[in-house]
Amino acid sequence: MWDKKKLLTIDELSRKDIELILETSGILEPHASKGKLQLCRGEILANVFFEPSTRTEKSFQAAMHRLGGDVIMHKDPGSSREKGESKLDTLRVLEQYSDIMAVRDPETYSLQQYAETLALPIINAGDGSNEHPTQALLDLYTVLKEKGSMENLSIVFTGDLKFGRTVHSLIKALRKFPGNRFFGISPETLELPVDLKGGDYEEILFEDMYGIRPDIVYATRIQKERMVSWAGEKFSYEINNDVLRKLPSTARIMHPLPRVNELNPEIDSDPRVIPFKQVKYGMVVRMALLALMLGHEKELPSQGLSN
Amino acid sequence: MWDKKKLLTIDELSRKDIELILETSGILEPHASKGKLQLCRGEILANVFFEPSTRTEKSFQAAMHRLGGDVIMHKDPGSSREKGESKLDTLRVLEQYSDIMAVRDPETYSLQQYAETLALPIINAGDGSNEHPTQALLDLYTVLKEKGSMENLSIVFTGDLKFGRTVHSLIKALRKFPGNRFFGISPETLELPVDLKGGDYEEILFEDMYGIRPDIVYATRIQKERMVSWAGEKFSYEINNDVLRKLPSTARIMHPLPRVNELNPEIDSDPRVIPFKQVKYGMVVRMALLALMLGHEKELPSQGLSN
Amino acid sequence: MWDKKKLLTIDELSRKDIELILETSGILEPHASKGKLQLCRGEILANVFFEPSTRTEKSFQAAMHRLGGDVIMHKDPGSSREKGESKLDTLRVLEQYSDIMAVRDPETYSLQQYAETLALPIINAGDGSNEHPTQALLDLYTVLKEKGSMENLSIVFTGDLKFGRTVHSLIKALRKFPGNRFFGISPETLELPVDLKGGDYEEILFEDMYGIRPDIVYATRIQKERMVSWAGEKFSYEINNDVLRKLPSTARIMHPLPRVNELNPEIDSDPRVIPFKQVKYGMVVRMALLALMLGHEKELPSQGLSN
Repeated sequence: MWDKKKLLTIDELSRKDIELILETSGILEPHASKGKLQLCRGEILANVFFEPSTRTEKSFQAAMHRLGGDVIMHKDPGSSREKGESKLDTLRVLEQYSDIMAVRDPETYSLQQYAETLALPIINAGDGSNEHPTQALLDLYTVLKEKGSMENLSIVFTGDLKFGRTVHSLIKALRKFPGNRFFGISPETLELPVDLKGGDYEEILFEDMYGIRPDIVYATRIQKERMVSWAGEKFSYEINNDVLRKLPSTARIMHPLPRVNELNPEIDSDPRVIPFKQVKYGMVVRMALLALMLGHEKELPSQGLSN
Repeated sequence: MWDKKKLLTIDELSRKDIELILETSGILEPHASKGKLQLCRGEILANVFFEPSTRTEKSFQAAMHRLGGDVIMHKDPGSSREKGESKLDTLRVLEQYSDIMAVRDPETYSLQQYAETLALPIINAGDGSNEHPTQALLDLYTVLKEKGSMENLSIVFTGDLKFGRTVHSLIKALRKFPGNRFFGISPETLELPVDLKGGDYEEILFEDMYGIRPDIVYATRIQKERMVSWAGEKFSYEINNDVLRKLPSTARIMHPLPRVNELNPEIDSDPRVIPFKQVKYGMVVRMALLALMLGHEKELPSQGLSN
Repeated sequence: MWDKKKLLTIDELSRKDIELILETSGILEPHASKGKLQLCRGEILANVFFEPSTRTEKSFQAAMHRLGGDVIMHKDPGSSREKGESKLDTLRVLEQYSDIMAVRDPETYSLQQYAETLALPIINAGDGSNEHPTQALLDLYTVLKEKGSMENLSIVFTGDLKFGRTVHSLIKALRKFPGNRFFGISPETLELPVDLKGGDYEEILFEDMYGIRPDIVYATRIQKERMVSWAGEKFSYEINNDVLRKLPSTARIMHPLPRVNELNPEIDSDPRVIPFKQVKYGMVVRMALLALMLGHEKELPSQGLSN
């Protein structure tokens, strides 16, 4: 039974919560295209982005539309902020117009503070370098759908493991399930933060990956500014046809997108390469969260209450 | 019976018109959140802002969605204007796509001119320093809801009374009802325009307010440029816990938002402080106007025709 | 029977295809205002504009809403493109969220390439100087509605016939129907490209137009940059009351908009001047295309399946 009004961090979700979200995602996935669901008809999502993000913003919007609801978009810098209004006042205004809110804010931990004042359900759509819990949930759903389980997996992470928020959240989330082992491939300057390392985590070289026969290779982008201090090795983590040939047929290549040079487009047609599936699953997981947080758990289609 | 196709100024509304709008607002208010009204299903509002305004734009959008309708947003500068198109041509294009239009234009009196050419219903969402009639109506609805009446009230206005469009409109509107008395608190350079003063209007000092035991204190923002010429007194109109303590428990503190320093956030939890309620009422009043101007007066929910 | 998944050029449409689109437009036109059609309920249009275009973007949006569907808008430059993402990756992301896509791209022939990768139905909303097939279709529908036929007509084109994409497409489209004759009025530097001329095409002077007694005068804008090299004759193609007086009462004046000096506003009330009707017809034709390409041919209202 879902009872949370806020989703701010992946940590606050129990294993049971996560399983309910993913189960609900499974129920809603068949309605994720050309759907006629009316679960959220007449309800309004306020989609508030104090920092741009095409992918996440559109994903929430599409999720709400797939459920039959409407969306109000607010992108900063808006006119009122220019007149000196605080972000919290802007959110309190939008609260009057909506039933649920997704908020992205470049300021770390800001969501926590907003959620104390706002009465409506609120979902963290990324707060600075802190959290992006819906990304972690979509990654989990992808793993579950593609590997049939979230346990006893070998997951290799490549790229920027220091600042990569999605990597941190996914490792935290997968640790709620037993038997998973993690491997990191990164320049020394971009290693996983010490507090996230553990007995289940190992640093390896790119070519060590083949011996591990990973279930998942999760590639991430290294930002340009950080590449400069890492010249010489540049692009050495590119996954192309050569790399794919040495990976097992059961491996899956994930990437949170946007990609730059990490995944060569030549591999796009390989069924093991699934970043665009992740995008679709992201919409599905957000449908599940919106439905649950708006109190529609008892009206889900499989329980016969949709039209 | 509603028969107006245009809402351009508050003056053109009779007392009867205003009462019908506020009565309709009362009927629609219960449907203003998680509503399933389908009154305007299949109808399109063109929301045209030649000047930015987060609050008003989103309020109209949410109002239309709450009624089951769709919204097309147009914000200038658009691409066609860059190609040399006149604003009127832009509006005539958008007219082909919509059933009703809300227009904000920084040019004073421009709406009057547009309305002569356009055939569809049109609502003034603010034309320069001239009028902003839906703001006046939401203020009236707030007064009615909070005080139970629009008659025999004492209303104190603070801040910029010279350029404050909302103050002018509200005074004009409240004069349609008997027994109201108005009090102005402002720097000398920002006094109420002479043609708006009258026997029911008095200039007072901030500390005189307590003796009046006002029903409403309506605070407004002084724009930065105007503050410069008014140094020394700066922030002396701030309403904080000290001020609230000296006001009666029946007083209500209103503000059109955005606020800067006029209302100290420490008073936000006092039930007498209601600027965010005004925001909600603004959506409700706009729902009423859209429903009436689109010809749905006979299908309002209380009359049994909604689903 | 409609079976096309892509609409990229006007040339790929047979005469039969065009007739089906225009017939469907005729069926849907009565539902183009205050419509309650639910043909596309639960379906999402991704409206992707890598170059701004108020008119076309809003037209597609309104068309989808009139059919009961939802819309996701993407305007470049978006955040992800700034992070180095290719346009194709952006489109593949949006594909996950939607059921059909309209794309405008300033790069000529780019649509062809995107359509090879994307699996969902895609409509060209203008690709550089190449094609803008929905504009040609709306012009055809306008001709059919206003003249009752698309055959044996005399059509005069004025303005920039060299770069005017809409002129090229309309001539190509009208050549699919017998008996049409075309006349071009332009500065020498802006003549129709040689490969578009033919036995049915003649260059004339502005004053020759009256003798022809044209069915249609199709005026287009000359862009400022091109006007410079054409000083002296500037504005000599203006259609005003003087010109209208010498044209037959059965003539129709069309213009793709935005206009600058080509149509004097003094003629706007003459029923022969129909650019804003074209705008309305544009929405209708796009409704037809969306309905057909989303597979709803068998559920069109006249066939009794709407509500």
